[in-house]
Formats: sequence, structure tokens, C-alpha cells
Amino acid sequence: MSRIELSYLSPALGYRTTVTALIPSIDWIEMMRGVEAESFYGRTFPSLWLLHGTSGDNDCWTRFTRIESWAEKYGIAVFMPDCRLSAFSDMDKGPAFYTFVSEELPAFCQRTFPIRQGRAHNFIGGLSMGGYGALKIGLRNPDRYSLILNLSGGVDRVAHVERTIQQDKQTGLHNLTAMRATFGDLSKVQGGIHDVFALAEGLARSGRYKPKIFTSVGTQDPHWDENVRLRTHLIKNDYDLHWEQGPYIHDWTNWNHYIELALEWAARQSSGQVQTLSW
Amino acid sequence: MSRIELSYLSPALGYRTTVTALIPSIDWIEMMRGVEAESFYGRTFPSLWLLHGTSGDNDCWTRFTRIESWAEKYGIAVFMPDCRLSAFSDMDKGPAFYTFVSEELPAFCQRTFPIRQGRAHNFIGGLSMGGYGALKIGLRNPDRYSLILNLSGGVDRVAHVERTIQQDKQTGLHNLTAMRATFGDLSKVQGGIHDVFALAEGLARSGRYKPKIFTSVGTQDPHWDENVRLRTHLIKNDYDLHWEQGPYIHDWTNWNHYIELALEWAARQSSGQVQTLSW
Amino acid sequence: MSRIELSYLSPALGYRTTVTALIPSIDWIEMMRGVEAESFYGRTFPSLWLLHGTSGDNDCWTRFTRIESWAEKYGIAVFMPDCRLSAFSDMDKGPAFYTFVSEELPAFCQRTFPIRQGRAHNFIGGLSMGGYGALKIGLRNPDRYSLILNLSGGVDRVAHVERTIQQDKQTGLHNLTAMRATFGDLSKVQGGIHDVFALAEGLARSGRYKPKIFTSVGTQDPHWDENVRLRTHLIKNDYDLHWEQGPYIHDWTNWNHYIELALEWAARQSSGQVQTLSW
Amino acid sequence: MSRIELSYLSPALGYRTTVTALIPSIDWIEMMRGVEAESFYGRTFPSLWLLHGTSGDNDCWTRFTRIESWAEKYGIAVFMPDCRLSAFSDMDKGPAFYTFVSEELPAFCQRTFPIRQGRAHNFIGGLSMGGYGALKIGLRNPDRYSLILNLSGGVDRVAHVERTIQQDKQTGLHNLTAMRATFGDLSKVQGGIHDVFALAEGLARSGRYKPKIFTSVGTQDPHWDENVRLRTHLIKNDYDLHWEQGPYIHDWTNWNHYIELALEWAARQSSGQVQTLSW
Repeated sequence: MSRIELSYLSPALGYRTTVTALIPSIDWIEMMRGVEAESFYGRTFPSLWLLHGTSGDNDCWTRFTRIESWAEKYGIAVFMPDCRLSAFSDMDKGPAFYTFVSEELPAFCQRTFPIRQGRAHNFIGGLSMGGYGALKIGLRNPDRYSLILNLSGGVDRVAHVERTIQQDKQTGLHNLTAMRATFGDLSKVQGGIHDVFALAEGLARSGRYKPKIFTSVGTQDPHWDENVRLRTHLIKNDYDLHWEQGPYIHDWTNWNHYIELALEWAARQSSGQVQTLSW
Repeated sequence: MSRIELSYLSPALGYRTTVTALIPSIDWIEMMRGVEAESFYGRTFPSLWLLHGTSGDNDCWTRFTRIESWAEKYGIAVFMPDCRLSAFSDMDKGPAFYTFVSEELPAFCQRTFPIRQGRAHNFIGGLSMGGYGALKIGLRNPDRYSLILNLSGGVDRVAHVERTIQQDKQTGLHNLTAMRATFGDLSKVQGGIHDVFALAEGLARSGRYKPKIFTSVGTQDPHWDENVRLRTHLIKNDYDLHWEQGPYIHDWTNWNHYIELALEWAARQSSGQVQTLSW
Repeated sequence: MSRIELSYLSPALGYRTTVTALIPSIDWIEMMRGVEAESFYGRTFPSLWLLHGTSGDNDCWTRFTRIESWAEKYGIAVFMPDCRLSAFSDMDKGPAFYTFVSEELPAFCQRTFPIRQGRAHNFIGGLSMGGYGALKIGLRNPDRYSLILNLSGGVDRVAHVERTIQQDKQTGLHNLTAMRATFGDLSKVQGGIHDVFALAEGLARSGRYKPKIFTSVGTQDPHWDENVRLRTHLIKNDYDLHWEQGPYIHDWTNWNHYIELALEWAARQSSGQVQTLSW
Repeated sequence: MSRIELSYLSPALGYRTTVTALIPSIDWIEMMRGVEAESFYGRTFPSLWLLHGTSGDNDCWTRFTRIESWAEKYGIAVFMPDCRLSAFSDMDKGPAFYTFVSEELPAFCQRTFPIRQGRAHNFIGGLSMGGYGALKIGLRNPDRYSLILNLSGGVDRVAHVERTIQQDKQTGLHNLTAMRATFGDLSKVQGGIHDVFALAEGLARSGRYKPKIFTSVGTQDPHWDENVRLRTHLIKNDYDLHWEQGPYIHDWTNWNHYIELALEWAARQSSGQVQTLSW
């Protein structure tokens, strides 16, 4: 497995940003077994764009989970950007993180690294705020992402916004000022481009391709309820949903457990295209 | 010289941030000459908090100049934070970068790394937006910084704001929306905590310690005029000013040249305390 | 938790080397709970020197396990050096890795970072080749290390050498030439400074402090037998041994599992000194 | 400019190794001028394999020179491996660094990154021990490298070996034991695959393509004499040699100065293929 720290200037963001990438290459066990390094050279890999949660960054997945082991096992290239507290939005008062993650970075990486072209080989996922981001980006771009991985997503952003307004919340990371800087006019969040429930319904009605969705959430996770609501909503709208639950809270033990299952699921969905590496 | 990439969670910012640090330790030439590594162990070093310009980040100084060579030569520990497009402000709609750079990070580093306590050993500097930031922070905290290094600073933020308002600028990195997110009510910038000219005058009147100021600027640099204006202003207010100019534009050739002179000047100002390492 | 990548010139090795370090600091959950960042500033931490296996390097522990989560949970500073294929020896034909790990690096770090002085707060551990290295270093320096963590160690280096000689092995990472470059005269390995069994016995006879030893090993791990032999030997020599076993092979699933138990054990051994951080 | 830290397992070396790479992409000035990021996407770049000196590593060029600025200006992708004290040899007792640098790494990178195929776009260079390495690799592989950049190379390895034997040198980085671990039988260095003078002559006689050679050396550099001798030898053998000299010693001020000239020369040699980026 190759680990790459890529630092480059993003015009969408207006500053240099760092992306952590994992790209399969020969590893120790293969070397010991006499696998030829060359056997990797001509290959391209499916890609997963993997998003962090609130207070996360480009290398939190590698620091706090075994993502590298699973990316290697299932032969998937993983790209982890740093999107701060943006909720993966083109911020009303701030940089264009949505454009960065969904357009600029994939265009850059697809021309720089050996990743496979086409929706069938292109997945998006994340945890907490990143699970929300993955759903938002995946449902708005069904021509480009075949699979969405939602781990404990803060999926009901509408309820979140309303609660913040009602409580007139002025402090904390998700206070009213920060929310307005992110989403602009908060009265327009519901039913708009930041509302995952509306996006899911709209896409279903359009008759276009609907990405398959993996969701995992702990039964003791504060995001449990909203994910259950989203499950009902997705089933009603005839999405192909894979659901995992377990006795977890909202922490890295949870995500370390489910990211393996999520990658295994992703590899299986695209089988025929993805060859599991012998480990 | 030790190079350190420090990634830690900053409560002031609300996310993990990366700081690049340089801390003197034994180097090749000393090793060859038989200098004992131990001779560095008991030592503490003066510290320079060094700020980037627009679109810069924590490692632009190390990538684009020879700062590491000069930090080693003059025996100075250098800490380079990543403050995005914040103008080193506690943003009206965004994180508290001023608090991060001027309080939280120094408190963290002074207890984590072997740096010397006291104003005489504590310097702040930067280029372009960072030159402005260094002046703003240094002039507001004269009890803590003895020296300010301003390389091609965008020092006249008041004029910058007024120009943006008059042009009704809606695009680019420094558009009206971005400026308001940074400074809040733009009509209050003049004479306030973001106005370097006012800060310099106010400090002079207060009778408190006035940091010594190093300024360098290219004669073909767009920031030439405002730095000349600031020079007049500082002299009028009886600051101890060191001025360097040369045939430069606003680029890394300029800053690579002057950062060496700036560090040499800093080491000289604090001589008696700073021992130049034999190179 | 702070993650530090430290790059510095090691006189013992003769080149710049990179060390990955983890030092407890405020983290997300504490921030959310209102823990003051300052509460970490005056603190010092016990330290664990953690060694890699064959083909490993300074960041394999952080890439392939959740070490950072456990270091944070148990309040331990972890330092992970890069010692190549050296078996943590002062190589006969190569750099002085033993001196680097056991003397130079601790001296450097104890003066650079906020770690606690004294044997009671100083632990050494590793996996595979690094488990062997931890035993070798710990048993030769009982005045400095109170605990040894051996995960699937390749502990019977004497048997390994003899097997290589009998098979007249000329290829692979551990061929005869490489072994001689590491250990010099192979006929002197048994009973010497590279023989963990002899070191354990010698230390027991000397009447000096005997470090407590944690060992974990998978029942399907090729290193199972030699660890069982070492267990018998340590018990005979009256060592305080903690033993963990489970249905594992020689892989990161194994080490990811046991490193948490090892850190929990280490924190418990030194309780009174180590305060478990609330998580 | 993209900066990439690539960490991957090298079968030739037997361990994970880190390579620092610079690959042109849009930068600040272009962004400000409205250059489209997409204009970089379809492009491929000529590549320079750039080697360190004694005690150097993969990021010494980026830490101590402005290589990134010049790589960007001249549109060249630069790959900087870490080859320890190996003299870029397949060590007699140690890893196969020559194979790593000259075969494995280029094969890996040419399939992973957007670099241009063919000798005309493939250059090798280095400083001190790396200047020697660049000549050794370039002259042994004239079908693959069109240009060699030798900055203050320790080019006369035969004289170096003889001096070490005569002085019976047992200490220091280049002692007899270390030399034998690198080159094997020292009596066979002269005239063999480690002898740059012999390689240059042999290639000239063979009638094959002779790479163009850039050499820079300070008049006060201890390597001055041997580079003058090599100059005479190369001219006699009808090489196309570019020579630069100046009042420098053997230090980073020297190499920071000449690496810019070397890249400008390389870009000019391959003009028609290399488009200098507007800066």
C-alpha cells in the first residue's frame, strides 16, 4: 500500500490544502510470497472519497482507524480531504468546499493517480458530518457515484438547524453565526440543496440512477434516531439500502469497526470490477 | 536542526491544526567537527512565531525559502502556524485565529518544547498578510514580543478595506463578503484593533515598551507605498525601525533574501542572550 | 492528542531520521466537555518506546493500529523510531541502532518533550522483531525501563541464527550475509548480548531489578513456540510475567488487538503515577 | 506545484521508504491571473531523479534549497528518494539502492504519476555523494537518461577508496568496514561499475548515446580538484559538458545557487519539449 500526503493549491478553496491518499501497491506479505511489484503497475483502482466529521481533518481516518489495512485488502484507492467545519458546502461566507470535494479534487486526482474512470468505480463516504456530506454529494451527483457509505451521519441537517434556531444558540462549534456562514439563509435549508431527505426524494422522482447506500449507526449513538428516520424515508423511496447497527456510541471504536464492513460491502457491490487482493 | 510537524487539536480553532516547527539541534557540520549532541540538550532557544501570506500555510516558509538554514545558523526556534485567509483575526464569522496565534499556541509550545521564556527572547514576523499580522499582534502585546519582522506586509488594511468598498468588490479572495466575515463591521476597522497605524500610535502614547521593528520591501512590490507610509508614521512615533529595500517584486525571491537578514538582525538585537551557532 | 513527526540528525546513525511521537493533549471529547487546554500544560507523561517489526518503520504502528486512541486514553507518550532491518543492534557493518534507541533518542526526547523522568515511567515495547528488540534493550538496561511489552516477538534469535546457518540461506531478508552484517560473528550470538534467554537469566542472577514483562502471541502465529519457551524460562527465573494469547496469526489484527491490552496493563502497573484520562 | 510525500514498500530495499515528489500544478500567481486549473490536467512532465549527499535524505533538497520554486518555474517533476549512506550502490552487505533508484522507483512512478516517457524527458542529478550517484547511474543507463546534473560530486570514488585504505581508516562515516559493506572487494572498485571515470570512457568507446552533463563546483569546495580532473576526462572523451564554478564551499548556499542554474539548463536542453511556465 502506498500512502501519499498531497499538498497542492486548490483554486476552489483559495489556499494550499493537504489530502491524504492510499493507493494499493505491493505489501509485505505479497513481497514475502514472491508477488511481483510489476503486477501492480498496469492496474487502476476504484476510488473512495472519504470524509471526516466535525473537528476532523485529512488524516483522522488513518490515525484512528485501520482504514489502510482494509483499503489494501479490498484494493480500493482512498482519498481523504480536509474540509474543516464546512458541512461540505460551498459556504455562504467561506470557501467552496462542495465544489472542491465533488468536482475539483476528483478531476485533479483522476489525472494524477491511477484510478479507474466511471461511476461504477467511484464511491463516496464519511462519518458523522462526513456521512451527511457523502449523502449530500452522492445524491446530487448520481451520474458520478455508484455507492454512498454513511457511518453515523448527522443526516437530518434540517432538524439540526431548527434546534439551533429555537435554542438561539450563540456558542459552540455549531452556533447560529457559524450555521449562517455555512448555509446562508437558514429558512431555505429545508427542501434545498443541503436537505438530504429532500434530495433523496427528488432523485427518486427523477427516475435517474439511485446510488446504493450503506448505513451503520450505533444504538447508543446520538445520531441513531435521525438515521432510523432516514432509513424509513429511503425504503419508501425505493433505495437499495444496506443497514448495520450495533451497541456503539459516537466514537472511533464504532467507525473502526464499520469502515471495514463498509469497504467489504463496497468491494462486493462492484464485484466483477474489484478483485479482492489476497492478504 | 530538528524539523517537527505538530498536529494537535486547537480549542481556539475548533479543529486539529498542523504547525511546522524548527528547533536547533546538532547538524551535519557539527557532527563532523565532533560537537557533542549533548551540548544541545540543556539549551533553550529564543522563539520566532512566523506567519504566512494570503494562500499560504504552515509549511510555505520551509518549502520556498531557506529559513531552516538561517534558523540553525542563528540558533532560533521557529514556529509556523496555518491561519488560512484570516488576516490573523478572531474572525467575525469564523475561528479565533488571533487568539490561537497570540495566546493558545505560545502557551502550548512553551510548555512542550525547549524555548526560552520572556519578551526578550520572543519575536513575531511574517510576509505580506503575515507581515500585517505580525505588526497587529506585536503592537497589541508589547509585554510579550520584543521584535517584529515585517516582510512586504499588507500593512494598510484600512486603505485595503476602503478600496474594496468603493469598488464594491464581489469576487476574488478579498471580496466584501470575505472581509466582513473576517472583520465584522467594516466601518469600524479604522482606528480599531485591526488598524496597524492606530495601534502603533496608541502604543507610543501609552508609554509602554515599543517593540523594535524590521521592515523589508521591494521597490517594485505593490506593497511598497503603504510600507513607506508606515515608515514615516513609525519614525514620527519614535519607534526603533530597521529598514531594508531592494529591487524586488512580491515573491519568494524577495522573502528568501530578506528572511536571512531579518534573522541575523533579530539575533543581533538580542545579543548577549542569543549565541550564534558556528556554521 | 498531539501527533509529532520529528526529523533530526542522529549522530549514532549518521543520518537524519524520522521519529513519530504521540504526546497527550486536549482532544475533541474533552473540548466538548469544557476541559481546559491549560490542564495539560504543566503535565508530564510516562513514555513508551515502541519498536516496529521486520520491514516496518516509524509510522507503521500509527498506520495499522489504533495506538493513538489508546495512548490518549491511558495518558502515555509514545515514541516510534525507524530502525530498518537492524534487529535493534549496533550493527557489525552498519549504524548503531541499539545505541540510538536505548541512549541517544531517550536523551534527546527527555530534554525536548514533556516526559516524566525515572524508570517507573519508562517502558519499552514492540512487535515481532521489535518484541525481540524490546526484550533485549529492557533486559540490558534494568535501571531505566520498568516494563517490557513483547507482542509476538521473534524472541529466540539463537534458534533463528542456527536455522539460517544449517539451511545455508543466501536469499531473503534474513540471509547469512545480512545476519553477519547485523550480529558479526554468528558463533557468538548464543549467550551474548543478542540472546534474550541468556540476558534474562543473567539479570535474574545479578539480583538487580527485573522489569515486568507483558507478552501476547497468537496461537497460530509462527512465533508461538518460541514465546512459550521464553515463558517457561522467565517463570523459572522468577520474572513477573503477564501472558495473553488468542486465535491470531502474525498480522496487524493481532497487534491492533493486543496493543490496547498492553497499554492498559502498563497504565495499571504504574498506577499511582499514571492517571487514566477520562475518555 | 503539488508536493507529495510518498511512503511505499520497496521490494528492492526490503522496507517501506519515503520519497518526496514535486509535480507541477496550478499555483498562486497563476490562480490570481485566472489560469484554469484544468490547463494542467492533461499534461505530463519531464522528470528529474534528484539524489542527496552523505547524511542526506528524501527531503533535504526541499528543506535547504528553493528547488520547489525552480521545479515549478521550469515545469519539471522532481523525485527525491532516501538512499542513506549507500553511494547509490547495490550494497555488498545491505539493500539494493542502485536497483531501487535506477529501476524500481522509476517504474513505480512512471505508472503512478503523470510523467513523460522517453529518455529525452528523463534526467538524473545530485549533490556530493549524489552527484557521484547521478553520474554512475546516468553513464550506466544511457538509453534512459538524457541529462546528468552533477553538483559538487564526490566523483573520484577510486581515489577516495585508496585514501581510506592507505590511512587504514577505522572511524568516521566512510571507514573501511563501511566501504566494504558498500562496494565489496575494494581492489575491484577501479575500472568497475563504481568507477565514474571508467564508465565515462567505456560508454564513449561503445558509440552509444552519451548523456549531456552539467557540473557545478565551488572553487573552495574540497571536491574541486576531482571535478576538474573529471572535466578533462570528459572533454577528452568528447562529452557535451556544461561547467559552472564560483567562490563557494561545500554547503547549501552553493547548491541552492546552482540547482536553479541546473534546472534552467535542463529545461533549455530539452526545449521544444519543455515549456517554461510563466511565473
